[in-house]
Amino acid sequence: METDITELNRVLAAAAEAAPVLAETTPAQRAQWLHGAADALDAAGSELVPLAAEETQLRESPRLQGELKRTTFQLRLFAEVLADGEFLRAAIDHADPGWPMGPRPDIRRTAVPLGPALVFAASNFPFAFSVAGGDVASALAAGCPVVLKAHPGHPKLSARTGAVVREALVTTGAPAGIFDVIFGVNAGVTALKDPRIAAASFTGSVPGGRALFDIATSRPTPIPFYGELGSVNPVVVMPGAVKARGAEVAKGYVDSFTLGTGQFCTKPGLLFLPKEHGLEDVLREAAQAVSGQPMLNDRIAAGYQDGVARLRGQPGVTVLTGPEASGDLFEPTLLTGRAEDFLLADEVLGSECFGPVSIVVTYAGQAELLKVLDRLEPGLTATVHAEASEVEDVRVLLPALTRLAGRLLWNDWPTGVTVSWAQQHGGPFPATTAPTTTSVGTAAIERFLRPVAWQGFPDALLPPPVQEVNPWHVPRRVDGRRS
Amino acid sequence: METDITELNRVLAAAAEAAPVLAETTPAQRAQWLHGAADALDAAGSELVPLAAEETQLRESPRLQGELKRTTFQLRLFAEVLADGEFLRAAIDHADPGWPMGPRPDIRRTAVPLGPALVFAASNFPFAFSVAGGDVASALAAGCPVVLKAHPGHPKLSARTGAVVREALVTTGAPAGIFDVIFGVNAGVTALKDPRIAAASFTGSVPGGRALFDIATSRPTPIPFYGELGSVNPVVVMPGAVKARGAEVAKGYVDSFTLGTGQFCTKPGLLFLPKEHGLEDVLREAAQAVSGQPMLNDRIAAGYQDGVARLRGQPGVTVLTGPEASGDLFEPTLLTGRAEDFLLADEVLGSECFGPVSIVVTYAGQAELLKVLDRLEPGLTATVHAEASEVEDVRVLLPALTRLAGRLLWNDWPTGVTVSWAQQHGGPFPATTAPTTTSVGTAAIERFLRPVAWQGFPDALLPPPVQEVNPWHVPRRVDGRRS
Repeated sequence: METDITELNRVLAAAAEAAPVLAETTPAQRAQWLHGAADALDAAGSELVPLAAEETQLRESPRLQGELKRTTFQLRLFAEVLADGEFLRAAIDHADPGWPMGPRPDIRRTAVPLGPALVFAASNFPFAFSVAGGDVASALAAGCPVVLKAHPGHPKLSARTGAVVREALVTTGAPAGIFDVIFGVNAGVTALKDPRIAAASFTGSVPGGRALFDIATSRPTPIPFYGELGSVNPVVVMPGAVKARGAEVAKGYVDSFTLGTGQFCTKPGLLFLPKEHGLEDVLREAAQAVSGQPMLNDRIAAGYQDGVARLRGQPGVTVLTGPEASGDLFEPTLLTGRAEDFLLADEVLGSECFGPVSIVVTYAGQAELLKVLDRLEPGLTATVHAEASEVEDVRVLLPALTRLAGRLLWNDWPTGVTVSWAQQHGGPFPATTAPTTTSVGTAAIERFLRPVAWQGFPDALLPPPVQEVNPWHVPRRVDGRRS
Repeated sequence: METDITELNRVLAAAAEAAPVLAETTPAQRAQWLHGAADALDAAGSELVPLAAEETQLRESPRLQGELKRTTFQLRLFAEVLADGEFLRAAIDHADPGWPMGPRPDIRRTAVPLGPALVFAASNFPFAFSVAGGDVASALAAGCPVVLKAHPGHPKLSARTGAVVREALVTTGAPAGIFDVIFGVNAGVTALKDPRIAAASFTGSVPGGRALFDIATSRPTPIPFYGELGSVNPVVVMPGAVKARGAEVAKGYVDSFTLGTGQFCTKPGLLFLPKEHGLEDVLREAAQAVSGQPMLNDRIAAGYQDGVARLRGQPGVTVLTGPEASGDLFEPTLLTGRAEDFLLADEVLGSECFGPVSIVVTYAGQAELLKVLDRLEPGLTATVHAEASEVEDVRVLLPALTRLAGRLLWNDWPTGVTVSWAQQHGGPFPATTAPTTTSVGTAAIERFLRPVAWQGFPDALLPPPVQEVNPWHVPRRVDGRRS
């Protein structure tokens, strides 16, 4: 399934035509569209979930049902963001002849949509990071038309979800060009280079995301590119936690790295345990108790098998458990080795391997732990398991952990990313290509907005958020004071 | 004056060493440093202003005095931003087992500094966009060490200002590596490629900024690059304004495009007047009344002379006034032509020419005006001069003007950019390389921060902005509600 150039041009032209129309809509209108899309997806669940199961190997219906619930919740949460109004970051500075640097004109700032957004869907969340996922919800909420590049792993589901969403949006009053789905690498790259596209987002691998980032930034007119790429998601276990509840931590870890057959960007890829942790047997048994599952698709399975083979061949790596080779079902692989050996071999510490594999790294004290943390690349998350009595030991590690991640966890597991106001899903490269932003949570809308200031304008021509009477009742900062 | 590689390495190592120290400081501490720097600059004014005058040809002491005032005001305003605390965008979502998408853990977001920032200083504001300018003030406020690449147009001033600022920062308690000045293109490019640099900003030309953006984004680890590049700054005059106060508008325009010998990024480069405006004589006389001034330096003067010669040679361009050639003093050049001719020649409409030249473009009605606005590249500003009776005619133009700019002005001139809470100085490429950000005003601090979320952490390990009792009294969003 490939979108040809004629169809692509039609989609891009329609998005470009819709952009100024969307820019004139109210947040309340867009909230209605998002509710329309969420309701339509809920109604189509019994059709869409089986389609997803068929194409992705995510055969467990509860998982897909849960993901659809997350997806429609997310759309409705962005409707709340629109009602709240703070996303506009509205500010008014009245004229002030006594402003210390010199007389100040009346100046008022609010935000406008960037324009048509190109969203590259992910493989591993056929709903929540795909056709109606967080990037789409936040871009539509911002008032940007969306061109969605479907992931080749679930084309039928993408087409059908796209049709459901599009119809719901248009039925609730959105212009026809607001949303469409395109297919194929060529169509995606051509769209990314097209001057009508004003921003792009992506969830996927480091090489794929980097290639698209390079295209986006080397255009004659470069555009913002929000790529959420790779992450090793280190987990540090402190000695007290091993002593108090080592077996529980070990089982939690195995559950987390094997969840969804390890195909989550937040899969814990490294578990740091103190030397002589004595948990080898528990870890091995827990991993062996996880039955083999199919992976999302053949391309991902092949990449996983190459990655595991490479990791197994690294100096210092021992296999705790794991099949020599896999057929259609992938049993977990658990590797281990000593931090001191890996300090000489970045290959082990630096590589995300998408799938049910993880490495237990033993450390010989806090100094060595800090040294190895300093060698890691930044990612999406970093986790600590510790006892309350170890708070001061953890405090010493926090600067290193903060450098490494956009989200830090305490006695929890990184898989599972809630969608909420305080969520941050991002981090310095290679976690993302835009470390000041988040791709999950309400703040994701800001990626698709740009501020505009209005100087000396008559009230009748100002956008409502900065008209004197504040007709939309948005929160504003007026003359430096928050209202 | 060139920083050699040994010295550059020392500066970068010191910045890298200071970064984690700065990350642990409180906003109140950093506010004190900014006040220290502002006070020291005020005290050194009688030494610095003559140095600036000597190196930049900005011989008018009031201009430089005013710019220094703007600079110290800006440093102190960022101290207010730090006291205000909203820049952290702190948010707390308490654990919620009933969260509709599934149980929510306790999650809390605040912001941390990106790390060492490399700031490329501008030529045309030796104080306000240079060693102690807005980029430096906002990066320091965010808690980022700054490596300042001096502009070659004012090396002695840069070294001296750097020493004053550095001493003041360190005297008020900042770590030694917080700030240093480097010199030379090679040192700047080498620093931009260095993995210790986490963000960069730039104010200058489109080719220069684009080249640096390309370096920043093609690093093995790409970093945010905040470039403020070029802008044509169109001004639209409506027929009613011509009729009611044409001469006044014409004089205001000439004052604005010749201010600072046209060497502002907000210089109005295009004035759109209705056909048969009858203002040729007023415009010519006003321009001829402006005496020639020296330009900032020989390189800028040479670029200006090439640019003017090119514009004069474009089809459809007529010279209203302007010297055939200039010596050391540059009298303004005012060109004119018809919109219908320029629609065929992007060269005229698309080119910022830094210096005292501008083009009066006549339009034959609103349809043609819209057509020509649609051909313009985005920039920093777009201005309208109109009578109150023309509000509805202007409304039709607003979408086109908003697409074009980060700041819109009504019956005012774009030169002069106030520093305030509502200011927005930016815009889509080529105005900037980061359209979602501003380089002037309090929101500039956000460019140097990244959000981090803390999931399930004990209060004792949380950063103060998200500790339960809110010890710093920062504004927060708690469970979705703003406090």
